[in-house]
Amino acid sequence: MSIPWLPISIIGTAVAFYVGFKNNQAYDRLWEARKIWGAVVNSSRAWGSCVKAFIINKHAESPMSEDELFAVKKKLIYRHIAWLYTLRNQLLIPTPWEHISQNGLVAMVTRRRMKETGVGLYDDGQIENILGEFLPLDEKDRLIAYQNTATQIIDQQTSDIANLRDEEFLDGFKHIKLQGILNDLYDHQGKAERIKKFPLPRQYGAASFIFTGIFIFLLPFGMVSEFHKLGEFGSWVSIPFTVLICWVYITMELIGDYSENPFEGLSNDIPMLSLCRVIEIDLKEMLGEEHIPEGIKAKNGVLM
Amino acid sequence: MSIPWLPISIIGTAVAFYVGFKNNQAYDRLWEARKIWGAVVNSSRAWGSCVKAFIINKHAESPMSEDELFAVKKKLIYRHIAWLYTLRNQLLIPTPWEHISQNGLVAMVTRRRMKETGVGLYDDGQIENILGEFLPLDEKDRLIAYQNTATQIIDQQTSDIANLRDEEFLDGFKHIKLQGILNDLYDHQGKAERIKKFPLPRQYGAASFIFTGIFIFLLPFGMVSEFHKLGEFGSWVSIPFTVLICWVYITMELIGDYSENPFEGLSNDIPMLSLCRVIEIDLKEMLGEEHIPEGIKAKNGVLM
Amino acid sequence: MSIPWLPISIIGTAVAFYVGFKNNQAYDRLWEARKIWGAVVNSSRAWGSCVKAFIINKHAESPMSEDELFAVKKKLIYRHIAWLYTLRNQLLIPTPWEHISQNGLVAMVTRRRMKETGVGLYDDGQIENILGEFLPLDEKDRLIAYQNTATQIIDQQTSDIANLRDEEFLDGFKHIKLQGILNDLYDHQGKAERIKKFPLPRQYGAASFIFTGIFIFLLPFGMVSEFHKLGEFGSWVSIPFTVLICWVYITMELIGDYSENPFEGLSNDIPMLSLCRVIEIDLKEMLGEEHIPEGIKAKNGVLM
Amino acid sequence: MSIPWLPISIIGTAVAFYVGFKNNQAYDRLWEARKIWGAVVNSSRAWGSCVKAFIINKHAESPMSEDELFAVKKKLIYRHIAWLYTLRNQLLIPTPWEHISQNGLVAMVTRRRMKETGVGLYDDGQIENILGEFLPLDEKDRLIAYQNTATQIIDQQTSDIANLRDEEFLDGFKHIKLQGILNDLYDHQGKAERIKKFPLPRQYGAASFIFTGIFIFLLPFGMVSEFHKLGEFGSWVSIPFTVLICWVYITMELIGDYSENPFEGLSNDIPMLSLCRVIEIDLKEMLGEEHIPEGIKAKNGVLM
Amino acid sequence: MSIPWLPISIIGTAVAFYVGFKNNQAYDRLWEARKIWGAVVNSSRAWGSCVKAFIINKHAESPMSEDELFAVKKKLIYRHIAWLYTLRNQLLIPTPWEHISQNGLVAMVTRRRMKETGVGLYDDGQIENILGEFLPLDEKDRLIAYQNTATQIIDQQTSDIANLRDEEFLDGFKHIKLQGILNDLYDHQGKAERIKKFPLPRQYGAASFIFTGIFIFLLPFGMVSEFHKLGEFGSWVSIPFTVLICWVYITMELIGDYSENPFEGLSNDIPMLSLCRVIEIDLKEMLGEEHIPEGIKAKNGVLM
Repeated sequence: MSIPWLPISIIGTAVAFYVGFKNNQAYDRLWEARKIWGAVVNSSRAWGSCVKAFIINKHAESPMSEDELFAVKKKLIYRHIAWLYTLRNQLLIPTPWEHISQNGLVAMVTRRRMKETGVGLYDDGQIENILGEFLPLDEKDRLIAYQNTATQIIDQQTSDIANLRDEEFLDGFKHIKLQGILNDLYDHQGKAERIKKFPLPRQYGAASFIFTGIFIFLLPFGMVSEFHKLGEFGSWVSIPFTVLICWVYITMELIGDYSENPFEGLSNDIPMLSLCRVIEIDLKEMLGEEHIPEGIKAKNGVLM
Repeated sequence: MSIPWLPISIIGTAVAFYVGFKNNQAYDRLWEARKIWGAVVNSSRAWGSCVKAFIINKHAESPMSEDELFAVKKKLIYRHIAWLYTLRNQLLIPTPWEHISQNGLVAMVTRRRMKETGVGLYDDGQIENILGEFLPLDEKDRLIAYQNTATQIIDQQTSDIANLRDEEFLDGFKHIKLQGILNDLYDHQGKAERIKKFPLPRQYGAASFIFTGIFIFLLPFGMVSEFHKLGEFGSWVSIPFTVLICWVYITMELIGDYSENPFEGLSNDIPMLSLCRVIEIDLKEMLGEEHIPEGIKAKNGVLM
Repeated sequence: MSIPWLPISIIGTAVAFYVGFKNNQAYDRLWEARKIWGAVVNSSRAWGSCVKAFIINKHAESPMSEDELFAVKKKLIYRHIAWLYTLRNQLLIPTPWEHISQNGLVAMVTRRRMKETGVGLYDDGQIENILGEFLPLDEKDRLIAYQNTATQIIDQQTSDIANLRDEEFLDGFKHIKLQGILNDLYDHQGKAERIKKFPLPRQYGAASFIFTGIFIFLLPFGMVSEFHKLGEFGSWVSIPFTVLICWVYITMELIGDYSENPFEGLSNDIPMLSLCRVIEIDLKEMLGEEHIPEGIKAKNGVLM
Repeated sequence: MSIPWLPISIIGTAVAFYVGFKNNQAYDRLWEARKIWGAVVNSSRAWGSCVKAFIINKHAESPMSEDELFAVKKKLIYRHIAWLYTLRNQLLIPTPWEHISQNGLVAMVTRRRMKETGVGLYDDGQIENILGEFLPLDEKDRLIAYQNTATQIIDQQTSDIANLRDEEFLDGFKHIKLQGILNDLYDHQGKAERIKKFPLPRQYGAASFIFTGIFIFLLPFGMVSEFHKLGEFGSWVSIPFTVLICWVYITMELIGDYSENPFEGLSNDIPMLSLCRVIEIDLKEMLGEEHIPEGIKAKNGVLM
Repeated sequence: MSIPWLPISIIGTAVAFYVGFKNNQAYDRLWEARKIWGAVVNSSRAWGSCVKAFIINKHAESPMSEDELFAVKKKLIYRHIAWLYTLRNQLLIPTPWEHISQNGLVAMVTRRRMKETGVGLYDDGQIENILGEFLPLDEKDRLIAYQNTATQIIDQQTSDIANLRDEEFLDGFKHIKLQGILNDLYDHQGKAERIKKFPLPRQYGAASFIFTGIFIFLLPFGMVSEFHKLGEFGSWVSIPFTVLICWVYITMELIGDYSENPFEGLSNDIPMLSLCRVIEIDLKEMLGEEHIPEGIKAKNGVLM
């Protein structure tokens, strides 16, 4: 049985629109996510540099020793690093629409991909341990209990610098500058959460999926009638070509599908671990520390 | 009777342009709306955190007790939560061009959809009751009488922090920072109102609708002539395909139509209730409250 | 006589590009214009709210009575409303390339459309009378004589708040915040003027018009040859289809053409009068006035 | 000799992409250039208004007379007008890739077009004379000798207001606000220079040109084979159609080509002279001058 | 052997989408990179101009001589120039996905292109030597040892201006303004690094490459069947056309490929060396130096 090519090509127009739309929007989401993390890098460097230079004894009511002053600065910078890793951790918690949360086969494949070409490649330890390195113990326990730990870490920073302002270790100008950076961090965090928590609207995603399905279902009937013109043998020749075209269109659909959520922990995601480490290195170098950790290196061509 | 395919395909070009245009712009409106509410989240966190840390007795002319000070902060933060729910409520009031305001069948279907897969899923109470929780009684009655309550709530905040500045609970820097956040809230509110009150221009929406209608009307005549080539039986075979294609194109048109207005209270809208609650939780945790409400959970896969 | 379809379809590609381009850019101009007026709303609310809260006697060299203080605030807010209506008025002055300035028939039709479905629907009075309500008499006469009245109104505001600063009714922080809002208003005004005074570049608009003309001229010859295949009767059948397609393409061209200039005073324009009134209401409510004007209501489905 | 249509249509796809790309990007460059000059207008108004209102005797160490004070303000505002004309002048210096710098015929035609429908229409005098009107003589000679005069004019402004700050004619708030406007001017200048000095990348422009050339070269062979189906006479009929299509595609290519560089001094460019004059008028009216120059009027439908 | 055109044209749709996507995104990356460097220019001018005008003796605790003051300013401005060249240098370090890092032939050709039409055209010396010109010796050695030298140079600037603030050579307003410029520089640096370190996602680039490959592989079979209609001789005629089309599509693919990474050191890149020199000239002229270096001139039509 065969059908004319025309109805297939009309449906093809709808497929082309939605698959193209999905690819474009998925890329935009990915690229916006990367921009947000880029902005996190920039704000982090500004935070480290300003904290280091701004807090001084000069006008303080009860000046601190040099070591105490350094400890205050280090606490503010280390807590910032804690915020970074916390944010990364919160963004990796699966949402119901990500591949890992789907049924059966998809979840299984995704689990294997995460392990072999995703976050699983790096044994980056439990978040509690990481926070333990950068936060005092009691503070860690208190902060980790909140519903949104990252939010409350910044709230703690706000509170700390307000105290430094009260005790005149900061003047009004510097205080507001630092607070401005903290508010920027709230912006970056909120933007990353927006991309994580608001998927590509389901009506668009589903249209792409369904229309591609219909197209692929009808394709063989149309191909047969075309290849039949080559003679009887043509029908058999049509099979590899049909398979090839199906593969191309399913690939297009899947590229959109896997780029859509840039915080899934898979190989095409934003390399958050690597970016956190880049910042950690820059900040520790600013503090003049001796033990600078190594940058994250790509494993099997995958950077996380 | 049958007609050649050519004139249909030329009209198809116009259909493709406008349906694609409508889908793209509708998505842009939806995504911008989500960005605006994301910005509301970020500004809200900054507001809570700064209010908590900024207001101090140190330079005040007549210092308050710790409890009074806390009460002042809590009032400012609770009034902000009142603003959130008020804004949501104002954005849900139907406009004349939304589906609920249309005639007969469309309105009926929309009402059912709102109840079963939209705002109706959540018994979120009357706005008066919600405001009663977050505003003093007399203030609530006064504010609710204004034509645009949300605008006047922020005006009240402006007035309050100006008074705190006068009495030196805030210095000039902090005052202007807080005022800056309030002005940002005016921006967010105005942007959300812009999307609500300025629909996709009717000339574009109507072109999409009319051209799709013409296309679907002409489609069967063109399909018959194509399928006729398969023999007499072909004409009958054309029927399911015509129906399928019509379904695809009507679906495309409807996807644009229902994404266009992201504050209608239907299942594809911005989940404003959920976002209000997220902020409420963060702010109450900042205040150290004991009774933290639960986050809004998706019902039937719909998050409002 | 008939010609093959091919050359027509190649020209059709050029038509599709330019008509699509024109529609897209015209929509972008319209939407940007709406965003600018949305920003005017936001800045206006911030202006009203800040003026009301900021100006105080506390540090003033020669304090005013409560009534005098209120009068000062009211003058600043009323002058702002005057700026709004002036800006609207300036944006409605026709430019040489708008439809009202064209020859003969187009101008006549446009005049009728303006009267029946445009600005003519609202008897909004002469701008002099409106300004008389919001400005002192001598100031009105002076300001109206300038080449760009709106610019000089803001200059007057700048001058007034600088004086308030000198006399210490404002501190430096508040002064700069208010000045910042005035500079934002210059931005909004300049952006609106940019859209008004820089049309869609003529080379693009003309290409769209000319190529559509060529396409429509050649269309019948191509259609005849296609329909001729249905038999002799086919040539006659081609007529209604040719007319339909021409209508579709002329409609597309016109949609772009009439969306292009969003400040012409026609039905698809930015509803500036309505927005001015919305702001007027909000500001008067902030001032606690008793006689709040009604919002502008749509007439015949048209909101100006 | 004739060839099948297919290979031509495949190349046509590449042509469509690059010609469309070039048109879109050229328009974006033009529109961004207009936005930048719009921002220059806005910043200029803010500069004039703020300079006029900010500089006061009140806290000055050695107060000036009213006339001296006015002279200081006028100098700052006039020097700004000098900057405007200097910027325009610098942007009109031809780059190696503009039409005027090309060989033989193109340069000759461009020179004629500049004279008849471009900058040549306005005898706007030598830049030295214009600067002579707005700058003191010694300053003019010094500034004009720099490699980038516009940059150094703003540097001079920076220096002047810093001095006014030192002598307490400005407080810290006002000083920083004025400096902020100067930094914005650096931004606007740099953005305009970016568009001037970084053409549409050659690889894209060349692809558009070459592919269009191949397409137009192959077109006649394809057209002949199509028209041949109409009978022997058809071959001759194909000639006018081939010419028409070539004209359409060359026009498309040229529209992109001439919109690409918006500061060439040709008729479709940004009307910089007119914008400079608009600002000059606004600023002179702010200064209360008596001799306000006329606005630039369009000549032969061309506004420069 | 020959196959029908249809399956090839369906794959052609996928090719068109991805090749077009790659070209568009590559251009966006290139243009964003140019914008970032444009912003570097603007911030650099502001830095030079503000440093020169802001630092004064007036309120200083222990005033410096004029020469000492000038030396301080010169150090800050020269260190900024060092930052520029350092940033350029860091952006030119090859990443694993750039052409120079690929295997065999591609790397060899790229090396030759870099030498003949890329960075190799300019003997711009070792970065150590350049830094030696603009930094004190001990500082140079210390800064160059950091993992990210550019970051730490700005940290040094932050530290220096904080010291100047402490010693009251700067007031609070000016200090924060200068710090704001430094934070902007962190933004620019981070944005450039984002483009350098986050390539066009591999899933998109690979799809473009693979689908083009399949298309080009199938093309001859389809062309033969088309040209065969011209008679037996036609098969031979199809060869040059097939080659031509392959060349067009490979060119399209390569244009995207080479525009994608705008900091590779090849001829279509951002002319960073030239921009660094432009800034160096402006800043040295601001300092009133006598030996102003020449601007970089294009060699063989290539500006680096």
